[in-house]
Amino acid sequence: MNDHSLLLPGERIDDLQFANLRVIQSPDAFCFGMDAVLLADFARARPGNRCCDLGTGTGILPLLIYGREPSVTFDAVEIQLEAAERAQRSVRLNDLEGRIAVHSGDIRQIRALLPHAAYDLVVCNPPYSPENASLPSPKDGIRHARQEGACTLSDVAAAAKWLLKHHGRLCLMLPSQRLPEAFDTLRQHRLEPKRLRFSHARADRPAKLAFIEAVLYARPGLSVEPPLITHEIDGRESPELRRIYHMPEEPRVSME
Amino acid sequence: MNDHSLLLPGERIDDLQFANLRVIQSPDAFCFGMDAVLLADFARARPGNRCCDLGTGTGILPLLIYGREPSVTFDAVEIQLEAAERAQRSVRLNDLEGRIAVHSGDIRQIRALLPHAAYDLVVCNPPYSPENASLPSPKDGIRHARQEGACTLSDVAAAAKWLLKHHGRLCLMLPSQRLPEAFDTLRQHRLEPKRLRFSHARADRPAKLAFIEAVLYARPGLSVEPPLITHEIDGRESPELRRIYHMPEEPRVSME
Repeated sequence: MNDHSLLLPGERIDDLQFANLRVIQSPDAFCFGMDAVLLADFARARPGNRCCDLGTGTGILPLLIYGREPSVTFDAVEIQLEAAERAQRSVRLNDLEGRIAVHSGDIRQIRALLPHAAYDLVVCNPPYSPENASLPSPKDGIRHARQEGACTLSDVAAAAKWLLKHHGRLCLMLPSQRLPEAFDTLRQHRLEPKRLRFSHARADRPAKLAFIEAVLYARPGLSVEPPLITHEIDGRESPELRRIYHMPEEPRVSME
Repeated sequence: MNDHSLLLPGERIDDLQFANLRVIQSPDAFCFGMDAVLLADFARARPGNRCCDLGTGTGILPLLIYGREPSVTFDAVEIQLEAAERAQRSVRLNDLEGRIAVHSGDIRQIRALLPHAAYDLVVCNPPYSPENASLPSPKDGIRHARQEGACTLSDVAAAAKWLLKHHGRLCLMLPSQRLPEAFDTLRQHRLEPKRLRFSHARADRPAKLAFIEAVLYARPGLSVEPPLITHEIDGRESPELRRIYHMPEEPRVSME
């Protein structure tokens, strides 16, 4: 197959440098970032897990999670037709049609799209700010991915509640500023926060992102994991970030 | 004054090794621990703050916070008569009767004890487990200090809401497992979590305690501070713990 026959004008193929995976991206649309890589690591998919990604964008989360645990299967939902169609071509590019299915649709209509109580793991890299919290981007694709025009955290929680098996897991990430309202919203949907991790750009800086695992119908009791420090004080990637990105270990400076 | 005339049988005077402060403790009752020292640091009392401590025990929080910011004044409430009376003697031992007033009373009756909307800062080192979550201690003093026999987090939040000025701060600490329910309870009382810090025994260990600052009638928006790592991997106190305890800096090992 000529891979480039899968590309539309303006698109490019990015090598994930990991498990031989590649993703099609359009620089005019929203491209995935470090947050998606960290969420894929945080989610810890287990062998055979049936998974769903809400708002898949480029399809990056299913690809990265498949790369870590090749026995999973994924249904990925994306409201923007163009992005959904592009993610579907990324799936074809990686020969993963049997593993990852992309659905174009609105997660607020999840009951018409995907089955009830069928999933072990739902992941979501949700939009970052409440509607109108920052200026809308003129590019509609970037607006959807960054703001809650298409859905709110409550929509995500309601969809996850529909999809998950009893004690199934929802893993998502948010700016840490929004943690209290996120906990409220999740618990209103019987999704109990059970695992929490923060990323800090440096050990002496405030947190940026909160990674949350909530379990449907679980009892209260939260485990707060060790902080994820992404960079050393001198700006180099931390050992843990290098592990998550499958980068080689840095050579140690000899003390002799 | 003969300091030892302030002691009852079985009590001792402990030197806080900081700001010339001392506290009377009874080894049969609950003695203060590292958590109180960390909370006093987290609370960051400001000059002239009028403060209240809910469930003061030995009186340690008012003493430690006064030691950091000598312009504060404190009302401290303690339900156990014996402990309240002992804390009052610690205040006298430090000649702080003009700064710290100890009240024997139940925080559920706060409206009869202390004035409304009069405080800048309320602190609380609340009991640790919900009633019946662990075996009751045969010693009543330890039972009160460790369990919610005397009050719940909801009682603490209701008392703080009564006491605080508009935009006044409640600073408390909890086992990090209880964070989601703590956020819920605080927000139900219009106390918005604005600042959060976790302590970890080591950088690679889960969090133990969550330190929360909630502000009455504030807008949502949480700042998650850098993690407080109390010990190095080899077991030595971390530089930050040494700072909080006013310990001298460790001599650096020469590289030559």
